[in-house]
Amino acid sequence: MQKLLTAFVLIGSILFSIHSTLGQVADTTKEKPYENVARDIIARGLLSCKAYDFLKELTTRVGARLSGSPQAEKAVQWGKKTMEDNGFDNVRLEPVTVPHWVRGPVEEASIILSDSKQIPITICALGGSIATAEDGITAEIVEVKSFDELKKMGDAAKGKIIFFNRPFDRTKFNTFEAYSGAVDQRGQGAVEAAKAAGVAALVRSMTSRLDDVPHTGAMRYVDTIPKVPAAAVSAIGANVLDSLIRKDDHVKVRLKLSCQKLPDVESANVVGELTGTEHPNEVIVIGGHLDSWDKGQGAHDDGAGVTESIEALRLLKELGFKPKRTIRAVLFINEENGLAGGKAYAAKDRPGEKHIAAIETDAGGFSPRGFSVQADSLMIEKIARWSYLLRPIDADRIQKGAGGADISELGKKGVPQVGLRPDGQRYFDYHHSDNDTIDKVNERELELGAIALAILAYAIAQEGL
Amino acid sequence: MQKLLTAFVLIGSILFSIHSTLGQVADTTKEKPYENVARDIIARGLLSCKAYDFLKELTTRVGARLSGSPQAEKAVQWGKKTMEDNGFDNVRLEPVTVPHWVRGPVEEASIILSDSKQIPITICALGGSIATAEDGITAEIVEVKSFDELKKMGDAAKGKIIFFNRPFDRTKFNTFEAYSGAVDQRGQGAVEAAKAAGVAALVRSMTSRLDDVPHTGAMRYVDTIPKVPAAAVSAIGANVLDSLIRKDDHVKVRLKLSCQKLPDVESANVVGELTGTEHPNEVIVIGGHLDSWDKGQGAHDDGAGVTESIEALRLLKELGFKPKRTIRAVLFINEENGLAGGKAYAAKDRPGEKHIAAIETDAGGFSPRGFSVQADSLMIEKIARWSYLLRPIDADRIQKGAGGADISELGKKGVPQVGLRPDGQRYFDYHHSDNDTIDKVNERELELGAIALAILAYAIAQEGL
Repeated sequence: MQKLLTAFVLIGSILFSIHSTLGQVADTTKEKPYENVARDIIARGLLSCKAYDFLKELTTRVGARLSGSPQAEKAVQWGKKTMEDNGFDNVRLEPVTVPHWVRGPVEEASIILSDSKQIPITICALGGSIATAEDGITAEIVEVKSFDELKKMGDAAKGKIIFFNRPFDRTKFNTFEAYSGAVDQRGQGAVEAAKAAGVAALVRSMTSRLDDVPHTGAMRYVDTIPKVPAAAVSAIGANVLDSLIRKDDHVKVRLKLSCQKLPDVESANVVGELTGTEHPNEVIVIGGHLDSWDKGQGAHDDGAGVTESIEALRLLKELGFKPKRTIRAVLFINEENGLAGGKAYAAKDRPGEKHIAAIETDAGGFSPRGFSVQADSLMIEKIARWSYLLRPIDADRIQKGAGGADISELGKKGVPQVGLRPDGQRYFDYHHSDNDTIDKVNERELELGAIALAILAYAIAQEGL
Repeated sequence: MQKLLTAFVLIGSILFSIHSTLGQVADTTKEKPYENVARDIIARGLLSCKAYDFLKELTTRVGARLSGSPQAEKAVQWGKKTMEDNGFDNVRLEPVTVPHWVRGPVEEASIILSDSKQIPITICALGGSIATAEDGITAEIVEVKSFDELKKMGDAAKGKIIFFNRPFDRTKFNTFEAYSGAVDQRGQGAVEAAKAAGVAALVRSMTSRLDDVPHTGAMRYVDTIPKVPAAAVSAIGANVLDSLIRKDDHVKVRLKLSCQKLPDVESANVVGELTGTEHPNEVIVIGGHLDSWDKGQGAHDDGAGVTESIEALRLLKELGFKPKRTIRAVLFINEENGLAGGKAYAAKDRPGEKHIAAIETDAGGFSPRGFSVQADSLMIEKIARWSYLLRPIDADRIQKGAGGADISELGKKGVPQVGLRPDGQRYFDYHHSDNDTIDKVNERELELGAIALAILAYAIAQEGL
C-alpha cells in the first residue's frame, strides 16, 4: 500500500509541473498586460459558478421560450430583472416585433406497409410549418438524399411525401460543419418537396446521435410556391423508415400536424451594460439569444449564451474592473425563427455611439476552446494578441471563422464579429430537442465560457481595436 | 424568413473557412509526414465510434470490477476475447497477484444531535478500510481542514471520529490539481486520525460537485499505527454535518461498515499488439487500467482508457497501417488499490525487448486536449513535433506533465511516460462513484481519445524517439 502514497506524491508533483507550464503561477515581475485581471476572473468565476445558477433559473422557472409565447415574455422580464438585480447600468428593453408560431397539440406519424401494418414513428413539426388537414395526410413516401436526386425523380415524386434522409457526415470533427452539410434539407425541404409536387416533407433530425428524439428547427416557405407541411423524424425513426422502404415498394406514411401561425407579437431585446469610464460611446457587445425552440428547456441553445453574457458582466462588476469602453450585454430575441432581435438591434439609431466589436456565444455551454473572428486578417491578429490571457483555461485558439447569427447584421455595418467556440462534440445531441435541458450542462464548463467572454471583452474595452 | 436562409448560407461559408484554417482540407502537394495517416484515422474513427461499443460491453456486461472480484476476472476474459476477436498479435494474459478487498453489505451513518435527533447521511467505505464493530461506532465528531489542525488539537481528538472536510479548491482550472490538493485526507486520513487517538475517519468526497453521492477511493494503513475505519461522506452530507457542528457542541456520528480484506487473488494484465514490421523488439505501450472501484460501472475510470487503447490498435489494423515498431496495448489490473499490474508489467523479464515509450490514458473519456510528457525537455520536444497531426482534432497541446500511475514503474526504468490529457471539468463529478456510468460518456469524445492515441503511437512507431 506504500506504493499508493508514492503514486499520490508523484501525481502531485507532476500536476504541479503541468500547472507551471500553463503559466498560471504568478510571477509579477514578468507579467504581461491583464494577466492579473484574467487570473482574478478565472478564480472568482470558478469559485462561484453563478452562470449555472442563472441558467437553472431560466430553464426551470421559465423553460422553453419560443418567440411570441408567454414564456418568451417571461424570459424577457427575467432577463431585465436579473440585470437590474446585479446592478448593471442602463438596463432596458428595446422593442422588437416577433413572429408567433405555435406547435399545437397534435403531432404524430405512422408508417403504413403494403399489408396495412402500421408502425408509429416519433416526429415533430418543423418550426414555421403549416398544419396538415385535420385527419392528416396519408401518402406514399419517397426517400432522397439530396435535392438533385429529388429533381431527377420527375413525376415519380408527385403526390408523395418526400423523405429527406441525408445524415450528418460523422467523419467531420467539426460538428457545425456536419450540420451545415445537412441543414438545407430542414430549411428548404418543404419548398423542394412542393416544387416536385410532393404533399409534405419529412426530414431526418439534424443530429449524429442515434436515438428516438426528434429535433425541430427553422424551415421556410417561398411566396410563389405552394406550402406543404414539414416535420422532423427521429434518427431511429428515419432508419426504420429507410429499412422498410428498401423492402416494400409502396410504403405510406400518415402525418398529422396541428401547428399554426398567429399574429406577430411585441417583444424585446434585453440590454444592460457596464458603462465605459473613458469612452462610454465606444461599445463592445456581448450576447446570446433569449428565445429558444419550444422543445426541452433551451439550456445549451441558447440559455448558455444568455447566462454567460450576464455572468461575464457580473464578474467584471463584482471584481471592480471598470472598463474604459462600454461593455454591453444584449439578450437578443427571435434568433431561432426570424432574427428580428438581431436586425432591430443593428437598425436602431444610436446617436454618437460606435460599436468596436460584437461577441456572440451561441454554440452551447461547453468548455471553451477559443474564439472565431469574422473580419480581415489584421483585425483577427489584433484580437488574437489576447490569446495568452485565455491560455490558462485552454481557450486560446483565436482564428478566422464565424461570428454569430444575431450579430451578423452588425457585421454588415462593418463591426468585427467574434464567436465564442466551445467544444462541439455534444451540441447536436441536444440541439432543438427535448434533450436540451439543464442536466446536460456542467457548471464549470458553462462558467469557463463566461470567463473567456469577460476576459476578451475587458481586454478589448481597455485597449480598443 | 428569407433572412434565415441568408444566415444558413453565411454560417455554411464561415464554417468552411474555419475548416480550412484547421488545415483539414487535403493539399497533398504540401502534406507533412503522416498527415494522410492522421486524416484517415480521424475519419474512420469518427465514422464508426467503436470505442463506445467496446465500452458499452465492458460497462454493461461486466460492470464495476474491483481487483480480486469475480467481475475483475470477467473483465480480464472480456479484454482477452476482444483483442482476439479483433485479430491483434500475441494476445496473452500476464499473471499478477492482486489484493481482494470487499465492501460488504452494510455501510451507513447518522448524525446524532445533543437532543438525540438522528439525521442519516450518505457515506461509503474507503477502499481498504477495516470494518467497524458489528453495531458500529458511535462517537463525538471533530471537524478539521488539515492534518496540522488535527495535530494542534491534541487530546481533544481522543476517542472522536475525525471529520476531514477540506474541499477541492474550485478556483483551479485543472481539476486534477484540485484533487491533488485534497486527496491526502482520503489516502492518509485514517492514519492521522489514529495518531491523534481518534476512532474513525470520515472524509469529504473528492469532488467539487455538490450532490449526495459519496466517492470511494484508496486509503492506506501503516503497520505501526492502529487501524481505524474510514469512510467518505457525500458533499451534501459533509455540508450538513459542518453546519450542525457549528450549532451544536456535541454532535455525534454513528458509523457502520462491514468491509473486509480477503486473501490475495491470481489475476492478470491483458496484453495484445500490432507487431512491428521492422523493429518488432522496440515497443510502444499504450494502455489504461482494467480494474475499477466497485461503484458505478468504471466507465470513465478507466473503461475509457481500456477501450481507447483497444480501439487505437483496431483502427490502425483496420486501416492497414503496419507499424515499423511494435505497438502494444496493455490493460493493467489493480491500478486502483495496489498498482500490482503496473509493477508486474515493468518487472517482467522481456529478453531482447526495448520500450521506446509508454502512453497511458486514465483521465476519462472526454475530448482530448493533448498529451503530457514526463521526460527531459529534449524528449518532450521530440514528441511535441507530432502535434500538427493532432491539430485537426484540437488535441495538439503536448507539454511537460504527468504520465500515469500504471506506467510509472516503466518510467523508473527510464522509459518516457506520456499521458493522454482530455478535458477535465467533468471527471471528478463521476470519479469513483455510482455516477461513473456509460450514459456519462459521449461516443465522439471517447473516440477522439482513441484517435489521438492511435496517431501519436503510430508516428512514434514509425520514426522512433
